[in-house]
Amino acid sequence: MWLRSRVYRQLEASAWPGRGLSPANLFLAVLIVGTVGAAIVETEPLVARGRELLFERMEIIVGAIFSAEYLLRLWVAVENPRFAKYRFPRLRYAVTPIAIIDLVAILPALFAVGGAQTLVLRFFRVLRMLRLAKLGRTSRAWDQIRDALYERRFEFALILGLLAIAMLISGSLLYWAEAGAQPDKFGSIPRSLWWAIVTLTTIGYGDTFPVTGLGKFLAGIIAIIGVMLVALPTGLFAASFTEGMQRHRERAQKKPSADG
Amino acid sequence: MWLRSRVYRQLEASAWPGRGLSPANLFLAVLIVGTVGAAIVETEPLVARGRELLFERMEIIVGAIFSAEYLLRLWVAVENPRFAKYRFPRLRYAVTPIAIIDLVAILPALFAVGGAQTLVLRFFRVLRMLRLAKLGRTSRAWDQIRDALYERRFEFALILGLLAIAMLISGSLLYWAEAGAQPDKFGSIPRSLWWAIVTLTTIGYGDTFPVTGLGKFLAGIIAIIGVMLVALPTGLFAASFTEGMQRHRERAQKKPSADG
Amino acid sequence: MWLRSRVYRQLEASAWPGRGLSPANLFLAVLIVGTVGAAIVETEPLVARGRELLFERMEIIVGAIFSAEYLLRLWVAVENPRFAKYRFPRLRYAVTPIAIIDLVAILPALFAVGGAQTLVLRFFRVLRMLRLAKLGRTSRAWDQIRDALYERRFEFALILGLLAIAMLISGSLLYWAEAGAQPDKFGSIPRSLWWAIVTLTTIGYGDTFPVTGLGKFLAGIIAIIGVMLVALPTGLFAASFTEGMQRHRERAQKKPSADG
Amino acid sequence: MWLRSRVYRQLEASAWPGRGLSPANLFLAVLIVGTVGAAIVETEPLVARGRELLFERMEIIVGAIFSAEYLLRLWVAVENPRFAKYRFPRLRYAVTPIAIIDLVAILPALFAVGGAQTLVLRFFRVLRMLRLAKLGRTSRAWDQIRDALYERRFEFALILGLLAIAMLISGSLLYWAEAGAQPDKFGSIPRSLWWAIVTLTTIGYGDTFPVTGLGKFLAGIIAIIGVMLVALPTGLFAASFTEGMQRHRERAQKKPSADG
Repeated sequence: MWLRSRVYRQLEASAWPGRGLSPANLFLAVLIVGTVGAAIVETEPLVARGRELLFERMEIIVGAIFSAEYLLRLWVAVENPRFAKYRFPRLRYAVTPIAIIDLVAILPALFAVGGAQTLVLRFFRVLRMLRLAKLGRTSRAWDQIRDALYERRFEFALILGLLAIAMLISGSLLYWAEAGAQPDKFGSIPRSLWWAIVTLTTIGYGDTFPVTGLGKFLAGIIAIIGVMLVALPTGLFAASFTEGMQRHRERAQKKPSADG
Repeated sequence: MWLRSRVYRQLEASAWPGRGLSPANLFLAVLIVGTVGAAIVETEPLVARGRELLFERMEIIVGAIFSAEYLLRLWVAVENPRFAKYRFPRLRYAVTPIAIIDLVAILPALFAVGGAQTLVLRFFRVLRMLRLAKLGRTSRAWDQIRDALYERRFEFALILGLLAIAMLISGSLLYWAEAGAQPDKFGSIPRSLWWAIVTLTTIGYGDTFPVTGLGKFLAGIIAIIGVMLVALPTGLFAASFTEGMQRHRERAQKKPSADG
Repeated sequence: MWLRSRVYRQLEASAWPGRGLSPANLFLAVLIVGTVGAAIVETEPLVARGRELLFERMEIIVGAIFSAEYLLRLWVAVENPRFAKYRFPRLRYAVTPIAIIDLVAILPALFAVGGAQTLVLRFFRVLRMLRLAKLGRTSRAWDQIRDALYERRFEFALILGLLAIAMLISGSLLYWAEAGAQPDKFGSIPRSLWWAIVTLTTIGYGDTFPVTGLGKFLAGIIAIIGVMLVALPTGLFAASFTEGMQRHRERAQKKPSADG
Repeated sequence: MWLRSRVYRQLEASAWPGRGLSPANLFLAVLIVGTVGAAIVETEPLVARGRELLFERMEIIVGAIFSAEYLLRLWVAVENPRFAKYRFPRLRYAVTPIAIIDLVAILPALFAVGGAQTLVLRFFRVLRMLRLAKLGRTSRAWDQIRDALYERRFEFALILGLLAIAMLISGSLLYWAEAGAQPDKFGSIPRSLWWAIVTLTTIGYGDTFPVTGLGKFLAGIIAIIGVMLVALPTGLFAASFTEGMQRHRERAQKKPSADG
């Protein structure tokens, strides 16, 4: 029990008595950043060619460490007061999102051994990026931004809906105007939607754009409205942050006067 | 009369005694989303080929349901206190914007039967997107955003005017600088305006851009000013939202003190 | 004297006793919008071909009306208390910016008669866009936005300076990285500056972009910083507008309490 | 000592008793802008060809002046109370960032004499841009913006981290979807990252974009999220500036009431 309690304090960030990260979590954070970095460069043929075995062994070792971490976290879950009240604390912990991510993040290492097919192999390589989510455990700062966005979720959903309708209408109008001149790019509404997204987000790759007079006229009006629409979420974020800071400051100002 | 009152409560969102949407409105909302989705994929030849008859029949059924809805809404309009005070309540209802949209949204179904010409057919397909506007009936949230924009309509009109003049002057300057080198793209002010819109909204497709030294110099200055101009509506939206939230919070703070 | 006073009230917007615009100013506003619209479409060969004489005659008539307006405004300038205190009120009025714009806006009409060379002709066509500035006389709303920007002119100058330095450094870095691979596009710092402007404003035409690994790496970092930089003026505008609205509201709240 | 004190007052902006810049600093500021301007146009072959000797001599003279400035600043450092308290005031001054920049900014002039290789030559030409940093000495305004950003450094670091993770995940997803169809552009995660940066910053050069249906679907969702993400720093800047202005105004309002 004494060992379990010690391991728990090492692994659970909120239970660590010292400042910053515990040695175990610091090691894991460095390992995560390193293994994600390795997973990125491994996909580049110019780097990976001739080093396939090296990367494969590295992945097996990393997988073993993450497996050990997962089992240890499962073992010490009973120490966490959040889960201790349940009948099966370890099972309760195992179904939390972060524990599921931990489990999924081990999978790519298991499949590193067998020579998988290209598409499946690439999928597991992308899955390794998920290990970044494990970093979320080490910081509480994300919670603040998440809360700020959560508080205004109805407004953001509304703006997303507005954006979706604007894209649908824009795409439909350009389909009407350009389908005859460019059937491969505007020949259906789903195809025109690609143009609408690329235009209303102001990315403008230049792979699809109207060429007819009517199409350019409609696209011009849509572009100007699009700039305004894209300004809506920016304005809402700005207002949310402004309100958040102000509330924070007001609370800070009230405290000293309450003492006096 | 008893039946009419029941139908009215089912169809009019504000008259529904329960929470959320009435069964009838929920069914209609699902139908609208479904029929718009079908209208989108129907335009894609890869999906529609060989299924023309299926889509045509679906459209006829949907048209029949929307026609029935329109007639029912007309029938129960006399129950609505908003229209009951008029001499011809049903006529008064029939000329409201939402009732006209309902009527227009049925049209594409009527023309689905006859084999229409390409351009007309495409027009009616685009018209089906209008059915999304019927969804507006189910939610009051849109009213809030519309009010926020309406309150600052003079400022937004001013900024739109400023943007229009900036585009006109930018287009004219590039016409002056580039008409000789690229007559097909900058050979007239209307043609240069397409460049000006694509540039000042920062879309930048890359189909038209200056190639002469003078043109690039002018475009560079215009681009920097353009970034500032596009920031104007964003700033104004942010200020409007901030003010709106603050007013809302102040009202919320006053309430408890009014009770005390 | 009685006639001069009547003409003055017709021409000077602030001296008009009624609401809105005086008949004379309304006529001039419509004429300005019409003549600018005609000047735009005239440059389009598809529209102008075969109608050269029509456009030339229209321009002569418009020039005659604007000349008469200029002389009348000069004549009634002595009625304006703003200029009446000077020794030569008409000369004083003639050197105000708006009077000089009026004079310059007549010039294109004078040169419409003689068959001018292409470049000079195009210059005078662009000059006609200046007539839009005459509209400024009819509205005071522009003053408000101008004042808001003028109040924060130091901050905006600072941000413009920051943007200029960022563009200079970005362009120099890409010149260093890409001059060897793309000498025609990044072969000198002025040429690289075109890339820097197009990138930092997020327009991204796609006519110039890095192709080497080092160039893409530097451009990636510059792009992310660029997004932040472009956010600076937006944030400042938002803050200025927020402050302006708040001050306006506070003033509005103080008034009723001052009456009590 | 009397001469040293005079020179110190001329060179140190904060020690100048008069308004604005001292004659020596004004001369240096003009020289910096001029030499940077010359360094920019010198890289353009169309301008520099045939004037190599002229530019080389100019660079030697400028280098001599900046060397003299550096030695003089080192000589008068003992007059500065900030460094006078140290045992070796001149050494202490020599290791300040601005003094190191001064030293590095002389280097390009030293290498202007010998005929350097292309890559090295280009590097020293870019290094001359660093002389702009010397201008920082003449203005305190930069400090304010730096402070405003410094106060919210955790939030900006968080947003930068969020942006980096978003780019990593976006790039990985497109690598998964597009590596087969476009191996040269999406064949590895580092290559896909170039697409992710160009897209999420809304630059959109158009050199890389998805062509498969799955790739376009994923890119569409990523683009919409990207617009929201890019709005985050804008919103945070706006909130910071709003708070800064409000605090400034509150302080200004408190002052007169404190006198009463």
